Amino acid sequence: MSDLPQLSAERVHELDRAHVFHSWSAQAQIDPLPIASASGVRFTDYDGREFLDFSSQLVNVNIGYQHPRLVAAIQEQVARMATLAPGFAYDMRSEAARMIAERAPGDLDHVFFTNGGAEANENALRMARVHTGRHKVLAAYRSYHGATAGAIALTGDPRRWASEPGMPGVVRYWGPHLYRSAFHASTPQEECERALQHLRDLVAVEGPSTIAAIILESVVGTNGVLVPPDGYLAGVREICDEHGIVMIADEVMSGFARCGEWFAIQRWGVTPDLITFAKGVNSGYVPLGGVVVSQRIRDTFADRPYPGGLTYQGHPLACASAVASMRIFEDEGVIEHSRRVGEEVIGPELARIAERHPSVGEIRGMATFWALELVRDPSTREPLVPYNATGDAAKPMAALAAACKERGLWPFVHMNRTHVVPPCVISDEDARTGLAILDEALEVADSFVV
Amino acid sequence: MSDLPQLSAERVHELDRAHVFHSWSAQAQIDPLPIASASGVRFTDYDGREFLDFSSQLVNVNIGYQHPRLVAAIQEQVARMATLAPGFAYDMRSEAARMIAERAPGDLDHVFFTNGGAEANENALRMARVHTGRHKVLAAYRSYHGATAGAIALTGDPRRWASEPGMPGVVRYWGPHLYRSAFHASTPQEECERALQHLRDLVAVEGPSTIAAIILESVVGTNGVLVPPDGYLAGVREICDEHGIVMIADEVMSGFARCGEWFAIQRWGVTPDLITFAKGVNSGYVPLGGVVVSQRIRDTFADRPYPGGLTYQGHPLACASAVASMRIFEDEGVIEHSRRVGEEVIGPELARIAERHPSVGEIRGMATFWALELVRDPSTREPLVPYNATGDAAKPMAALAAACKERGLWPFVHMNRTHVVPPCVISDEDARTGLAILDEALEVADSFVV
Ligand SMILES: Cc1ncc(COP(=O)(O)O)c(C=O)c1O
Ligand SMILES: Cc1ncc(COP(=O)(O)O)c(C=O)c1O
Repeated sequence: MSDLPQLSAERVHELDRAHVFHSWSAQAQIDPLPIASASGVRFTDYDGREFLDFSSQLVNVNIGYQHPRLVAAIQEQVARMATLAPGFAYDMRSEAARMIAERAPGDLDHVFFTNGGAEANENALRMARVHTGRHKVLAAYRSYHGATAGAIALTGDPRRWASEPGMPGVVRYWGPHLYRSAFHASTPQEECERALQHLRDLVAVEGPSTIAAIILESVVGTNGVLVPPDGYLAGVREICDEHGIVMIADEVMSGFARCGEWFAIQRWGVTPDLITFAKGVNSGYVPLGGVVVSQRIRDTFADRPYPGGLTYQGHPLACASAVASMRIFEDEGVIEHSRRVGEEVIGPELARIAERHPSVGEIRGMATFWALELVRDPSTREPLVPYNATGDAAKPMAALAAACKERGLWPFVHMNRTHVVPPCVISDEDARTGLAILDEALEVADSFVV
Repeated sequence: MSDLPQLSAERVHELDRAHVFHSWSAQAQIDPLPIASASGVRFTDYDGREFLDFSSQLVNVNIGYQHPRLVAAIQEQVARMATLAPGFAYDMRSEAARMIAERAPGDLDHVFFTNGGAEANENALRMARVHTGRHKVLAAYRSYHGATAGAIALTGDPRRWASEPGMPGVVRYWGPHLYRSAFHASTPQEECERALQHLRDLVAVEGPSTIAAIILESVVGTNGVLVPPDGYLAGVREICDEHGIVMIADEVMSGFARCGEWFAIQRWGVTPDLITFAKGVNSGYVPLGGVVVSQRIRDTFADRPYPGGLTYQGHPLACASAVASMRIFEDEGVIEHSRRVGEEVIGPELARIAERHPSVGEIRGMATFWALELVRDPSTREPLVPYNATGDAAKPMAALAAACKERGLWPFVHMNRTHVVPPCVISDEDARTGLAILDEALEVADSFVV
């Protein structure tokens, strides 16, 4: 007597085409694959084809699919209490906030919950603006921060174009990225210094007293797994301190084991003023995101109402799943595992792959967060496909993706890159299996090298 | 061996105060009540005090707390599949979209899912802007549309003030509200005609070719349960048709049984171009919202990518809970029940209450969606507390709320109004019990009448 009907693959597909409006897509040009089930690091379609997941869906299933303890915890919580408004105190909300605050660096002791990453960045920006009484925010070109009006205005990549002109007050900067340096640098240290100088110059010409916040992804995610050179994040921290600017670290993608830390920024020992999170906090089993707030910014709102909120923030199911997920992370050593599998398996294997394939211009990353930058010409570093290519121009990347899928690997593909972002719990063996498939498939990419 | 720890009331409260950053509040001035459990139309604190809920939390628990079939469906879905990215087809997402599309009016056949109401309005506005190639949007002063940068800019009430200046392009209008007419009208028909004339004049002076959308709450919610006069929504539809403007009906609060319909606008037989929903769709058991999209607007994005998305849209748990909730609504006649309990119990009882209490200036509403407008002076209609009052100035309303809570009723209080918005499944007897408490408590409000 279930209230969840059984549908055939055909019916799932037919109803999807008839009634589901898909994101980021031309509705008549997509053909979404019906998925029947998922477990561990794999999901399966209705024909029984199994895919090893090198994308973690949208880089969120850090704990893997259908973790039995996490499933059980959500079932237990549903039976206890499914929903409760933000105005009350609730055990799982209190406990989730405590656990997140204790794992966050420095005095980031308070948690404002949201349903996802965009809402987290919206609220971080609002906090920074009210806290400083200033309006501008510096955001990176190579970034994605979400798709609500504020978050998309912060976003540097082409996804913002169709939403412009949008929220005013955003000033854009270039972050460090040695392989495609905006600063003509030739060493990581030079890139770091020049990127900081660029930021300092921008702050000067925009006017420090007008700038509420600098936002950055601690490790840039969708735009290329750009690991900051040592010293960069500390340098940004210094600039912020000097001018009373709020430093916002977007850890929606980089947090919760993805970089082998609770928060990626901890790798560099830097404490921002606000951290935004989502995805890995509960692997997306229930929609959840939030902002971790420093004591100083929290104090701004001690006797002055914070002007923001949402109906489902601090949702009992979402918070309970975060509590259970953090406990599982610790019991099973997921963070250490993520770091180790990156150091011992993914990194070394990718280094070998890079040597074998002329199309691989650079590999970079850490833990379970890696990118392969593909090029048409290794000497000029011309990308394998043009910036933001679609249709025919994007064919080489589509062919690479198809070659992976045929072999049972679900890749993450964005512009001229493929990212290796499996669930953080992936075993050494599964990682090797997936990398071997990628190795084969990259011959397709090589065939486009001039 | 649960992963969900047991906490004492003291610990829940202590951790809340230490680590939870609350919405819309001065953090040091609140004292959130720890809630232990909930069932049906009641929730209970750790001292065993039970509250009959006349607020449905944030007007979202339409089906009541812990409905056994809905709890079971979510448990079943967690075991099947907790999370899946929007790019795939998935049975519960397909089925939820079909069910919503079939219940929506006219050719609103496609569903873009989100996590909540703000994100739904953000995406509706984006669709309207790209569809029309125009930028401006007309939004009402007496409105709330959410708290992300786009949604808060659409919002007319004071919650937007601290987020200004925000997203440009919003032009504000006055909707119909006879009791506090912006148009000096004295009959519903006159209010309707003048409100439409005001809108027509605005369209003319703003320039029809610059206006992407007119957004309205079909029945205005938090800003007063403002039921539009007959003819108003059809009149807005006409204005939109004449100028190629997209009509967006925000049904986040008014939809899914709250007004005794699937969508409130169906009461007036009007079909907008976009409907936004959340809350009642699954009573908030899992965060869910969305936009129902007309065929014409969907076709704009047939061969042109829709430029928006979010990680958790069309979430399996959320969609499964919507499917189960809609089935329960039908099996149990929740929509008809909501309408009938309004007509037979709440409406008549409130009419009697209004007669007995000089502080009650007006009652209005339908089904399980009612407001009592409280006044200091019935002849001048001076509100019981000033617009957006806080602290001492808001005391009369705080005293009313306290009087309700002492008697075991949890009221919805906003500015100078209390709303009667219980779960839509409330029995006649529980409705009468709650209204009797409200009746008593209103003597507190009467004591402030001059
Ligand atoms: C770094 C980063 N920030 C924010 C977001 C937006 O999160 P959401 O899609 O949950 O709104 C994403 C999503 O991919 C992200 O990667
Ligand atoms: C009419 C209306 N629209 C939008 C929203 C925003 O929804 P959410 O809080 O889920 O973002 C609300 C919330 O109360 C609402 O009442």
